[in-house]
Amino acid sequence: MPRPVIALDWGTTRARAFLISETGEVLERRSADQGIQSVPAGGFPAAFEAIAGDLRRMAPEAQIVLAGMVGSRNGWVEAAYVPCPASPDAIAAAGLTVALADGTPALILPGLSCDEGAFDVMRGEETLIVGLGLGDGIACLPGTHSKWALVEGGRITRFASFMTGEIWGLLRQNSILSRLAEEPSEEGARLGLAAGFAAARRPGGLLNTAFAARSEVLAGRLPGSAVGPYLSALLVGHEIAGALALSGRHDTVHLVAEGAMAESYGAGLVAAGLTATVTTPEAAFVAGIRRLAGAIAA
Amino acid sequence: MPRPVIALDWGTTRARAFLISETGEVLERRSADQGIQSVPAGGFPAAFEAIAGDLRRMAPEAQIVLAGMVGSRNGWVEAAYVPCPASPDAIAAAGLTVALADGTPALILPGLSCDEGAFDVMRGEETLIVGLGLGDGIACLPGTHSKWALVEGGRITRFASFMTGEIWGLLRQNSILSRLAEEPSEEGARLGLAAGFAAARRPGGLLNTAFAARSEVLAGRLPGSAVGPYLSALLVGHEIAGALALSGRHDTVHLVAEGAMAESYGAGLVAAGLTATVTTPEAAFVAGIRRLAGAIAA
Repeated sequence: MPRPVIALDWGTTRARAFLISETGEVLERRSADQGIQSVPAGGFPAAFEAIAGDLRRMAPEAQIVLAGMVGSRNGWVEAAYVPCPASPDAIAAAGLTVALADGTPALILPGLSCDEGAFDVMRGEETLIVGLGLGDGIACLPGTHSKWALVEGGRITRFASFMTGEIWGLLRQNSILSRLAEEPSEEGARLGLAAGFAAARRPGGLLNTAFAARSEVLAGRLPGSAVGPYLSALLVGHEIAGALALSGRHDTVHLVAEGAMAESYGAGLVAAGLTATVTTPEAAFVAGIRRLAGAIAA
Repeated sequence: MPRPVIALDWGTTRARAFLISETGEVLERRSADQGIQSVPAGGFPAAFEAIAGDLRRMAPEAQIVLAGMVGSRNGWVEAAYVPCPASPDAIAAAGLTVALADGTPALILPGLSCDEGAFDVMRGEETLIVGLGLGDGIACLPGTHSKWALVEGGRITRFASFMTGEIWGLLRQNSILSRLAEEPSEEGARLGLAAGFAAARRPGGLLNTAFAARSEVLAGRLPGSAVGPYLSALLVGHEIAGALALSGRHDTVHLVAEGAMAESYGAGLVAAGLTATVTTPEAAFVAGIRRLAGAIAA
């Protein structure tokens, strides 16, 4: 019979903890800025207690599962990457068990590696992809370093990373374009997104069309409030085109996102002639944890 | 009979001044950090004197020609962009005359604009392109914001800007990749350039292959000393591909560059199956000034 699960998505700069009931309901959620980079050597049992100790007291019998950078070289213990293609069972089986302060075992999930021409890795996203429960399909997880993963026959067969969010931040905050960019208005967002998705299809490529934001604003054709949305749409459009070039055509993309990110990627997928299903990161994480925890408990 | 020319390439952050003989020889050159952004309102005659006063005393009869951002809205006087297609005569004719401190006239050259789908502008590069003396051909001027220009029938018919140098700096200095990058060694440069030019042809695009620098270093496949050269080659490769997609195929590219820039772009052009001719920026500037000054004097 399934037990409740206490699950942590424990990344570099922050941790999110969930108490999940036997039936998959999120009973409690916590968010803490105790990312792994703030944890001193040997400090992980105490850090876990600080982040999720109260959840343990609520559900002392819960299974404990930790995902994300906590399983990296700089984390609690290094759980080696599972090479693709990887099934949920293979991911769960490659988890490592550590002991909490009171000796209770906790499972640390591994990340995945992929070697399709270029080497690539992920940690944490594999759990969300598993949570989508796909038999065959393609998943998009937008972010600082977006991930696209291909699922075939229930296994993650390959994936690729895109530096989209980070390059958006650099262009928006640190480049010559940042001087022209104003806070986005509704009108600016509308104009910028339309112009950016259109620019993503222009033959000059990203280096040319990123610079065009400047000329278009200087020429009075785009307002300063459109610069951020323009760059966002331009980069998202390039990410989508690159991912499809790597993975082949898919009519439907399974997007793991919420809020503004879900909106901009959704619009980008529509602009590329695709359909999107949207799952929130929390829902995907919780479902993935249940699937992976179940594989261990079974 | 032609006169000597005192010519300034007067940009945002610096100025370079040349005394050019009647026969086109550079007799003297000066470099100063008095870019137009450091010149107060009304301070241009005095700034010119500080930069090139001694050249005037050497050649009091010289014609004075100023190119670059000195002709922008934030410069001495705004010389409106000449729309492409633009002949050297049209560029020279659109120059504005200002008075030096002693009343001597000085010609301020205009920039160019281009409206091929996206609006684009240049100031200063038009002089170097004219200096190539092309009847028909394509010119590449690498830099923070590289320019590619198409010359047809002796006129600059269109051009495009690429944010290559600036994005290289952002990725190399301010991104997650900067932590992995070490000072380039000869071996690192060799490995990085080869890997970067190959990556520029991969289907995932720039956002994917930029991130691959990280995974390849973490996987031990590239040394940290290859990160900067890899990113340089990747970006140059994308710039070349984008420029050719905009302008159509050309077997020979007329490159205006020197030093490391000439080497990396030359290697990128060879990797793309093209031939490069190389002209130094100084040679192109001096030849362009002579051509444009001659059009006025004539």
